[in-house]
Amino acid sequence: TTDGDRLWDSLMEMAKIGPGVAGGNNRQTLTDADAEGRALFQSWCEAAGCAMGVDEMGNMFARREGTDPDALPVYMGSHLDTQPTGGKYDGVLGVLGGLEVLRTLNDLDIKTKHPIVLTNWTNEEGTRFAPAMLASGVFAGKHALDWAYGREDAEGKTFGAELERIGWKGDERVGDRNMHAMFELHIEQGPILEAEKKDIGVVTHGQGLWWLQCTVTGKDAHTGSTPMAMRVNAGLGMARMTEAAHQIAMAHQPHAVGAVGHCDVYPNSRNVIPGKVVFTVDFRSPDLGKLTSMREQYEAKAKEIADELGLGLEIEPVGHFDPVAFDEGCVTAVRNAAERLGYSHMDIVSGAGHDACWINDVAPTAMIMCPCVDGLSHNEAEDISKEWAKAGTDVLFHAVVETAGI
Amino acid sequence: TTDGDRLWDSLMEMAKIGPGVAGGNNRQTLTDADAEGRALFQSWCEAAGCAMGVDEMGNMFARREGTDPDALPVYMGSHLDTQPTGGKYDGVLGVLGGLEVLRTLNDLDIKTKHPIVLTNWTNEEGTRFAPAMLASGVFAGKHALDWAYGREDAEGKTFGAELERIGWKGDERVGDRNMHAMFELHIEQGPILEAEKKDIGVVTHGQGLWWLQCTVTGKDAHTGSTPMAMRVNAGLGMARMTEAAHQIAMAHQPHAVGAVGHCDVYPNSRNVIPGKVVFTVDFRSPDLGKLTSMREQYEAKAKEIADELGLGLEIEPVGHFDPVAFDEGCVTAVRNAAERLGYSHMDIVSGAGHDACWINDVAPTAMIMCPCVDGLSHNEAEDISKEWAKAGTDVLFHAVVETAGI
Ligand SMILES: NC(=O)NCCC(=O)O
Ligand SMILES: NC(=O)NCCC(=O)O
Repeated sequence: TTDGDRLWDSLMEMAKIGPGVAGGNNRQTLTDADAEGRALFQSWCEAAGCAMGVDEMGNMFARREGTDPDALPVYMGSHLDTQPTGGKYDGVLGVLGGLEVLRTLNDLDIKTKHPIVLTNWTNEEGTRFAPAMLASGVFAGKHALDWAYGREDAEGKTFGAELERIGWKGDERVGDRNMHAMFELHIEQGPILEAEKKDIGVVTHGQGLWWLQCTVTGKDAHTGSTPMAMRVNAGLGMARMTEAAHQIAMAHQPHAVGAVGHCDVYPNSRNVIPGKVVFTVDFRSPDLGKLTSMREQYEAKAKEIADELGLGLEIEPVGHFDPVAFDEGCVTAVRNAAERLGYSHMDIVSGAGHDACWINDVAPTAMIMCPCVDGLSHNEAEDISKEWAKAGTDVLFHAVVETAGI
Repeated sequence: TTDGDRLWDSLMEMAKIGPGVAGGNNRQTLTDADAEGRALFQSWCEAAGCAMGVDEMGNMFARREGTDPDALPVYMGSHLDTQPTGGKYDGVLGVLGGLEVLRTLNDLDIKTKHPIVLTNWTNEEGTRFAPAMLASGVFAGKHALDWAYGREDAEGKTFGAELERIGWKGDERVGDRNMHAMFELHIEQGPILEAEKKDIGVVTHGQGLWWLQCTVTGKDAHTGSTPMAMRVNAGLGMARMTEAAHQIAMAHQPHAVGAVGHCDVYPNSRNVIPGKVVFTVDFRSPDLGKLTSMREQYEAKAKEIADELGLGLEIEPVGHFDPVAFDEGCVTAVRNAAERLGYSHMDIVSGAGHDACWINDVAPTAMIMCPCVDGLSHNEAEDISKEWAKAGTDVLFHAVVETAGI
C-alpha cells in the first residue's frame, strides 16, 4: 500500500541536514540543523494538505482532518532529533513513516472518521539536554514546563533560550490535546528481530530507566610530586564506580543493562590528579524490582567506594521512567495489521525509551518496531533496509486507519 | 639581600594575567594570556637593563652583561605558563625570583664576571601541547623543531601556528646557546619540605616519567537496547585500565607514582556505550628500573583487559624522560648558599619534571626548591609564604653570583 521508494527518498533527503562525520547524522535538538529539519518537515506536511500546530515545547502537530467533527484524532509520530553521532533512522523513520501514511491516504483518497495527527516530539534523545523524551514528558504531565525550559546543555545554554533562538517555540499550551490513540513506529535499536528473522516487532512493553548523574569530588594535585598516600583521586573513584555499575547490571541478568556513557574529567590535564569527575550511569530493566535494586545497590556501592578513597559524592537522578505496558487495544491493532499484511512478527519489549512510553500514560498507545542491522543504533553506521522500512510503515498505516475508522 | 616585598608584588602583578576561577591562574601556553604575561616580563627585564633574545620556540632570554667578554653566561629561570587550573607560583616563582636576582644585582651595583641570563621556557606544563618541557627539550636536542611545531592541542591547533599567532616566534635558532651553568628555582609541589620544616630543598635528582596515551576502541551502541553480551564498551576498558595503572603504581611502592589525569570519552552521550576513550597514564619514579617495570606491566595488563573485552588498544608514549642526577658542582653551590645564609635545608628528589631536567643534559644544572602549603600544586589553591619565596630567591642569588664570579 505505502510507497517504499518515496519513503526512502524522504529519509535520504532529511539525512542531508546535519550530516555526521561517518555517514550518519548530528542533528541534535535545538541546533540550527534541527531548525532546518523542522522546516523541511513542515513544508512536506503542508504539501500533503495538513495544517501545522506548534506548542510551547516546540512539539509539531500536522493535522489531516477527519469526517466526524466530534472524533478525537489518532496520533502517530516520533522524533527528528539525533544523537551527536547518530543514525539516519532512529526517530526519523517514525516521523517520515507517518508522513508516508498521510501521503498514501491522499493518494488513495481515503477519508477517515477520526482526524489523524503526525507529531515530531522535541528532544527525544536527551544528549544535549537531559532527560530524554523531555517534550513528550511535559506533554504527559511528567515534567513542569519551566523545569524543562531550565534544563542546561554542557555549555550552560538552557532549553528555553535555545528553543526561542531557533524560532520553534509555538503558542499552543503543552498537553492541551486529547488523543483517541497514538502509534509510534521506530527501529528496534537491538538485535532481536534480525536474529529471529521477523519483519515486525509488536511492542508490548518498554524497559524502565534510571539515569544517575554522579559528581565525584577529590583534590586536584600534581601527578608527579604528590605521594600515593596523599591522593584524593576522583578519576580512580569514577573508574571503580564505572566497574561497579557494570558488575551490578551483570548480577541482575537477564533483562537488565547498565553502563556509563557520559564522563567529564576535571581539569582533564595529563599531570593533574582529577579533582572532579561528573558521569552518568544508565540502568534499565523491564522489571521494576530489578531496576530499583540496581539503583539501590549502585548507590550503596558508590558511597562505599567514595568513602574508601576519601571522595565527595553526589548522585542526582537526571532521567527516570518506570517500565511500561502498552495499551492492549492498540497492541492488538498492530499485531492484527502485521498478520493481515502477511508480515512475520513477534512480541517484543523495547530496550530504549520512546515518546510513546510517556504518551501511553495519557492515551491508548502502542509501538511498531523494524529490525536494524546488527542491532546497532546510536552509531552513525546504524542501518535498515528499504523493505524493513516499508513493512513497518505498512503496519503503521493499517493500525492507524483501522483505529481512525473509515 | 633580595627584596621579598618587591618579589611578592611582581608575583601578584603577573597573577592578574590569565586569572583562574578559584584564585589561581589559567595562563596556558600560547594563549593570549601567555602573550600578555610575556610582554609584562619583557618590560620588567628591559627596565632592569637587560636585552631580550627570543628563539624559534618562543623561549625568552634576558641578558645582563658580565665583565669577561669570553665567559659563558650563567643561566637561571623557569616558566610562566600554567595549568588550566593552576597556581600562581608553579614556574612563575623561578622566573620572577630570577628577575629579583637581577634587580638586586643592580641595586647593589654588582658586576659579575660571567654574564647572567634569565629564561622563560615555553610550554613547560604540557597540558595544552604534550609533552611537558617541550621547548627546553628542543633546546637540549631531545626533540626536533618541526616535531614540536606539529604538536596539536585538543582542538587540533598546532604549536607552531599558535606560537606565530601570539607573536612570540623569535629568530634565534633553538639550542644555539652555550651555558656555563643553569639554576632553576621552583616550588616543591609536594609535601616533604613543609613536613620536615625546611626552608630549602637542595634538589639532587629528578624522577623519570612515562606518559602513555591510550586509545581504546569499542563500538558505539545504545545503552538501553544492546544486550550486555553484545557490548564492546570502551568506557569499561578505560575504567579497568585506570584501576590497573593505580594498582601497578601501588605495587612499586615506595618511590613510584601512577595515575590517569586526562580522559576523553566519545561520543560522551548518556545513552551511548562509549565507542572510544582516549586517556593518558602518568607513571613516575626516580628509579629507572621501577619506571620501566611499571610501563611494561601496564602495557601487558592493558592488552589483557582489551582482549578480554574485545577492545582495540593503541598505546602511544607522549612524554618521557629518564631519572636525572643533577650536576654535583651546581648542587654543591646551592647547598653552600643555603648553609651560608643560615636557611634550614635538606637534599630532595624532584617529583615533577622541570626544564632543568633537560638542560642538565647540555650544561651543569641544579635546582632549588621552596616548600608549598600542604604540598598542593596543579591546583588553584596552590600557596606559598613570602618568606619561603624570599629564602629560595636568596639561595638562587648566592648560587648564581658565586658561579658567575665577581
Ligand atoms: N530511542 C532512543 O534512543 N531514545 C533515547 C532515549 C533512550 O536512551 O532510550
Ligand atoms: N613542574 C611541573 O609541574 N611541570 C610539569 C611537568 C610535570 O608534569 O612534571
